[in-house]
Amino acid sequence: MILRMSSLFVRTLRDDPADAEVQSHRFLVRAGYIRRAAPGIYTWLPLGLRVLRKIEQIIRDEMDSIGAQELLFPALLPRKPYEATNRWTEYGDGIFRLKDRKGDDYLLGPTHEEMFTLVVKDLYSSYKDLPLSIYQIQTKYRDESRPRAGLLRGREFVMKDSYSFDVDDAGLDASYLKHRDAYIRIFDRLGFSYVIVSAHSGAMGGSKSEEFLARSEIGEDTYVRCTTCDFAANVEAVQVPAPAVVAYDDAPAAHAEQTPGTPTIQTLVDHLNAEFPRADRPWAAADTLKNVLMMLAHPDGTREPLAIGVPGDREVDQKRLEAAVHPAEFQPFGEKDFAEHPALVKGYIGPGALGEKSASEIRYLVDPRVVEGTRWVTGANVDGSHVIDLVAGRDFVPDGTIEAAEVRDGDACPQCAARGDDGVLESARGIEMGHIFQLGRKFADALDLKVLDENGKLVTVTMGSYGIGPSRAVAAIAEDTLDEVGLSWPRAVSPVDVHVVAAGKDDALFTAAERIASELSTQGLDVLYDDRRGKISPGVKFKDAELIGVPTIVVVGKGLVDGVVEVKDRASGERSDVPADQVVDHVVGLVRS
Amino acid sequence: MILRMSSLFVRTLRDDPADAEVQSHRFLVRAGYIRRAAPGIYTWLPLGLRVLRKIEQIIRDEMDSIGAQELLFPALLPRKPYEATNRWTEYGDGIFRLKDRKGDDYLLGPTHEEMFTLVVKDLYSSYKDLPLSIYQIQTKYRDESRPRAGLLRGREFVMKDSYSFDVDDAGLDASYLKHRDAYIRIFDRLGFSYVIVSAHSGAMGGSKSEEFLARSEIGEDTYVRCTTCDFAANVEAVQVPAPAVVAYDDAPAAHAEQTPGTPTIQTLVDHLNAEFPRADRPWAAADTLKNVLMMLAHPDGTREPLAIGVPGDREVDQKRLEAAVHPAEFQPFGEKDFAEHPALVKGYIGPGALGEKSASEIRYLVDPRVVEGTRWVTGANVDGSHVIDLVAGRDFVPDGTIEAAEVRDGDACPQCAARGDDGVLESARGIEMGHIFQLGRKFADALDLKVLDENGKLVTVTMGSYGIGPSRAVAAIAEDTLDEVGLSWPRAVSPVDVHVVAAGKDDALFTAAERIASELSTQGLDVLYDDRRGKISPGVKFKDAELIGVPTIVVVGKGLVDGVVEVKDRASGERSDVPADQVVDHVVGLVRS
Repeated sequence: MILRMSSLFVRTLRDDPADAEVQSHRFLVRAGYIRRAAPGIYTWLPLGLRVLRKIEQIIRDEMDSIGAQELLFPALLPRKPYEATNRWTEYGDGIFRLKDRKGDDYLLGPTHEEMFTLVVKDLYSSYKDLPLSIYQIQTKYRDESRPRAGLLRGREFVMKDSYSFDVDDAGLDASYLKHRDAYIRIFDRLGFSYVIVSAHSGAMGGSKSEEFLARSEIGEDTYVRCTTCDFAANVEAVQVPAPAVVAYDDAPAAHAEQTPGTPTIQTLVDHLNAEFPRADRPWAAADTLKNVLMMLAHPDGTREPLAIGVPGDREVDQKRLEAAVHPAEFQPFGEKDFAEHPALVKGYIGPGALGEKSASEIRYLVDPRVVEGTRWVTGANVDGSHVIDLVAGRDFVPDGTIEAAEVRDGDACPQCAARGDDGVLESARGIEMGHIFQLGRKFADALDLKVLDENGKLVTVTMGSYGIGPSRAVAAIAEDTLDEVGLSWPRAVSPVDVHVVAAGKDDALFTAAERIASELSTQGLDVLYDDRRGKISPGVKFKDAELIGVPTIVVVGKGLVDGVVEVKDRASGERSDVPADQVVDHVVGLVRS
Repeated sequence: MILRMSSLFVRTLRDDPADAEVQSHRFLVRAGYIRRAAPGIYTWLPLGLRVLRKIEQIIRDEMDSIGAQELLFPALLPRKPYEATNRWTEYGDGIFRLKDRKGDDYLLGPTHEEMFTLVVKDLYSSYKDLPLSIYQIQTKYRDESRPRAGLLRGREFVMKDSYSFDVDDAGLDASYLKHRDAYIRIFDRLGFSYVIVSAHSGAMGGSKSEEFLARSEIGEDTYVRCTTCDFAANVEAVQVPAPAVVAYDDAPAAHAEQTPGTPTIQTLVDHLNAEFPRADRPWAAADTLKNVLMMLAHPDGTREPLAIGVPGDREVDQKRLEAAVHPAEFQPFGEKDFAEHPALVKGYIGPGALGEKSASEIRYLVDPRVVEGTRWVTGANVDGSHVIDLVAGRDFVPDGTIEAAEVRDGDACPQCAARGDDGVLESARGIEMGHIFQLGRKFADALDLKVLDENGKLVTVTMGSYGIGPSRAVAAIAEDTLDEVGLSWPRAVSPVDVHVVAAGKDDALFTAAERIASELSTQGLDVLYDDRRGKISPGVKFKDAELIGVPTIVVVGKGLVDGVVEVKDRASGERSDVPADQVVDHVVGLVRS
C-alpha cells in the first residue's frame, strides 16, 4: 500500500503547538498525527490512527493467544450498576455524568468492572464455565482535573481492559500469570523501554499487583528501583528489609530526662547533644522514635485510634500510609481525641502510653527498622520529658509493623537484602502503560456473581483486572524513541514500513522513486512516498521525513545518475548507498529482519 | 481459527427477550450476539462483534479503494463548533449534552460535519489540496425518543461517515459518483436485498441525494417504487409527471354558481352532482381545485403568505410540503392573517384572489397536474359560491408548481412517464442503511472553510456527505436473511465460515470432528466447533447451529461409521453426505466459491 504525500491528509508544522508540554506531544502534532479537539480530547489524523491501530492489533493478538475473548461494551452506561458498587459516588468529579431526555442518569464509562461482572453473571452459572478471560478495546472517559501532555493523560482515550474469572485463588494466580506473560510479549513487541514495577494492590497484602511503566523522566508515576539488581516497585509496595535483632544484654536501663521545649525532632536532637552528649558520636535524628497519632475510619463506619512509630529522620509517606491502612482511611488526631486519651501528651508521646504493654489500648505499629534490641530516644508521655535508651522488645512491644515511612534514595533494596547483597534503591519516573492485578471478589461480591462449584454450592467468583492504554502508548512510545529532530518509531508500530523520498526535480528521479515505491508495495510493505513536486525542496522533504519518523528512509536523489539511492536508518542516522536495482530487496530484508 | 462452543463466551437462550420487537433482535439476543445494557444501548458479545467488524472491514476496504482516508474524531465534542452552525440548539432533545468539571458544555457527537469541516480548514488552504475524501468508523450518540428494534435504532451506535471536499460543483458530482459506486459495491458485498431510493436533499433542488434501504416490512422508512421499472424514491423526491396540455378552445366560459354550505370537498361534490350534474359522468373530487393557505417563515426571519392548489381528491403531504418549502418552514394561516387579506374568503378561496393575475400578491403554487387547459371547480372568493369551468392558463396563471400533494399507490411512475411507459407507483418500507448526498456549502459557509482557487481568489469549498451504519447493518442483514428457526448470515458477514458439530457421544466422533475443524482452520477458514460433551444432545446442538446461523454446517454424527459427514446449507436447508476425508476440500470450495 502506498500513501502519497501529495494527497495524504497531513500537514507538517514548523512551529510547536502552544499547548504542548512534552516533546512527544509537540512532534505528534507537528508531524500531523493528531490534533486537539478540546482539552484532553484528540482527533487522530491518518498517520496517528495507523500507529494506534497497530498497537491495538499487537495487544489483540496477544490477548487472543492466551484464549481471552474480545467483546465490546458501550461507553454510555446506566447509573445502576455503578451505584451497586458505590462508584457512582466514589468517582466524585472524575467522571462525566449526564441525563437522558427522560431524566435518567448515565455516565461515560471510566472503566468497566461492573459491566464485565454483570455480563458474566448473565451468561455463566457453573464452575465448568470457568476460567474465563474476556476483553475489549474501547474508548473510555475520565474528567481529569488537569488533562496533561497530549495523549498521556487524556479525557477521552482508548483502553484495552480484560478481566479473568476464576472459581478459586489458584485459578486466579494462573490467569494472572497468563496475562503477565502476554503483557511482557506485548511490551516487547511494541519495542520500547519499560519496567515492571511491583504495585500495592490496595488490599490487605497477598494479592498480586504489577504495573508496566515506560521509563520516562516526564512520567507522572514515581517508583524506586535497585541500582544493582532488577528490583522495581511503587513506593507503596516497597517492603523495608528488617535489620537483624540487636543484642541488648548490656544496654543501660531506660531513663527519663528533662527535655523542655523540644517538641520537634530537630530541637530534641540539639538538646540531646547539648545536655546528654554521646561518647561515640553525636545524637542524630535516626536515634529518635517519632510517634504519630491518627484516627482510622473503617469502611464499616467505626473509628479507631492508631499510633505509628518511625525513626525520627523519616517522614511518614502519605501514599504508603494510605496503601497500608486501606480499606480504612486516616484522619487527623484532633483536640477532642487527645481529650479522650489523657495519657497522650502532645509532642512527648512515647510507647509507654501505647501498644500492648500500655493500658491505653491504642494500636501501635512501628517501622520494620524498629526491631528487638534497637535503642531509642522517644517521648516520656510527660510534657518536656523524653526517655533515653528505651529498648524495643525490652521496654516496649509494638502491636506490629507498618510500611508507612518514606522510601529514600540509598535505602537498602529488599530483594538484594534477602539475598545478602547490598544494592540500594533510587527513585525514578515512568509512564503507566499497563496494570495487572488480582482484583479478588470485590466486584463479584457487590454484584452477586456466584457460580455453582463441584459440590453444587454457590461460590463467589474471583477476578483479575488487566489494562493497557493504546492511545497513551502512542505518546509513550513516541516519547521514548524520539530525538531532537522528530519522531522515530519502532518498526512494529510505525505508520508505514518505509518512507521513499523523491529528492530533486528530474522526471527520471520521480519515475525511479515511483517504481521503487510500487515494488516495495507489491512486496507487501506499506510505503509513504513523498511524491510532492513544485516548490517543495529536498531539504523540506528530508526534514518532514525525520519529523514523521518512519524507521527506514529511501532517498532517490542525486546518486541516481550513478545508479544508487540512499537508505537511511532513522534511529541511528546511518546512511548507505544501495544500487537502485537492489534497494527493494534490501529494504524488504530490513523490514522483515 | 477455531472457536469452541465449550469455551466460547456465548449462551443461547430458548426464550425470546421481553423487550424485543422484531425477529432479528430476538434472534441476535437468543443466539448470544448482543445483550442490552440500557434502552437503545448494547453490548457486543464475541459472535456479534465478529459480524460488526466484518461489516466495518468491507466498508473500510471500499472507502480505501476510492482513495478516501481514514481518521478518527472523538465522540465527546465541545459545544462551540455546534454553536457556529446552530445545531447545538437545533438538535433539541435529540442529543446527549453534558458539562465537564469546569462547567463547560459538551455533547456526544450525533454526527461530525462540524469536526470534518474544521479539520480540513485546519490543514488545507489551496485548490491544489482538493479533491479530498476522509472518513471515520466511529461510535455515535443520539438520544432517540423511542429507541427501537434493538440495533435498528440505537442511542449508541457505530457509523461510517465520510465527507468529500471539492472546489466546485463538478468536483462534487465526481466525488458523489465515486462514493455512490463504492456504496453499491459495499451493499452488494454485504449480500442482502437493498434498493437505492432518490431522496430529497432538503435544499432547493439540484443537489443529489440518495438513500440505500434494506427492503423490509419492519423498516421505519417508507418509499415508493414502480411496479414496472426500477424507479424508487422517498415520497419527498417524487416528481409528479405533468400531463399534456389540454385543448380548451371549446371550453365554456367560467361561471360562478351558488354553492351554499359547501366548505369541504365532499359537500361541494355532493352539491355539484345534485344541482349541476354533468352529462358524461358524475362530478368527482378530482374535478375540484383545493386551495390551501399557509404562512412561510423564511430563515431570514421574514414571513410570507403562500397558497397551494392541489386536486381536491388529494391531501397535502406534510413531508413533501416541508421538503418543498425548505429552508423556509410553514405555519398555519391564522385569523389575523385572514384579517390582513380580506379578499380571501375562508372555505371558498379561489385563484381569483391569488397568483399573478390577482392583485393580492400572494404567491400561488399548484400541483404539477394543474396544467394549461385543465378545467376546475374552485372557490369564487365569495362565501357560498364556487366557479365552474375555470381553465388553467386561461382564467388563472399560477406562479409555479409545487410537489406537495400526497403520492398514492397507482400514481404514474415519473420514470416510466418520461419514457412513454405506463408503470405505476406502490409504497414500500425499508430500513435506511446508507445515505449519500450533496451537502454543498452549508457547513463550509458556517465555519468559513475556504481555499484559494487557481486565480488566487478565496472560494468556499463544497462538500458531500456519505453515511452507513454498520451496527444497524448487523440487524438489517439479520432481519433480511433470517428464517423461522434462526439467523442465516451471508458468507461475507458470518461470524465464522463454518460450524462443525460433533453430534453424538463416541470419542471417535469427537476425534474426527476435531481433525476436520483443525484442518479447516489450517486452510485459513474460521471455524465454530461445537465440542460440547455431557448432557448436550445432538438435537440441542442442531438447534443452536440453526439459531447462530453460520452458512455452512458440518455434522459429524452417525454417518461417520460409513465414512461420511453431513454438510448442510443453512439458508436452503439442503443436506448432502460427503466422505469424511473429502469434507475439508468440499467446504473450502463452498466458502471460496
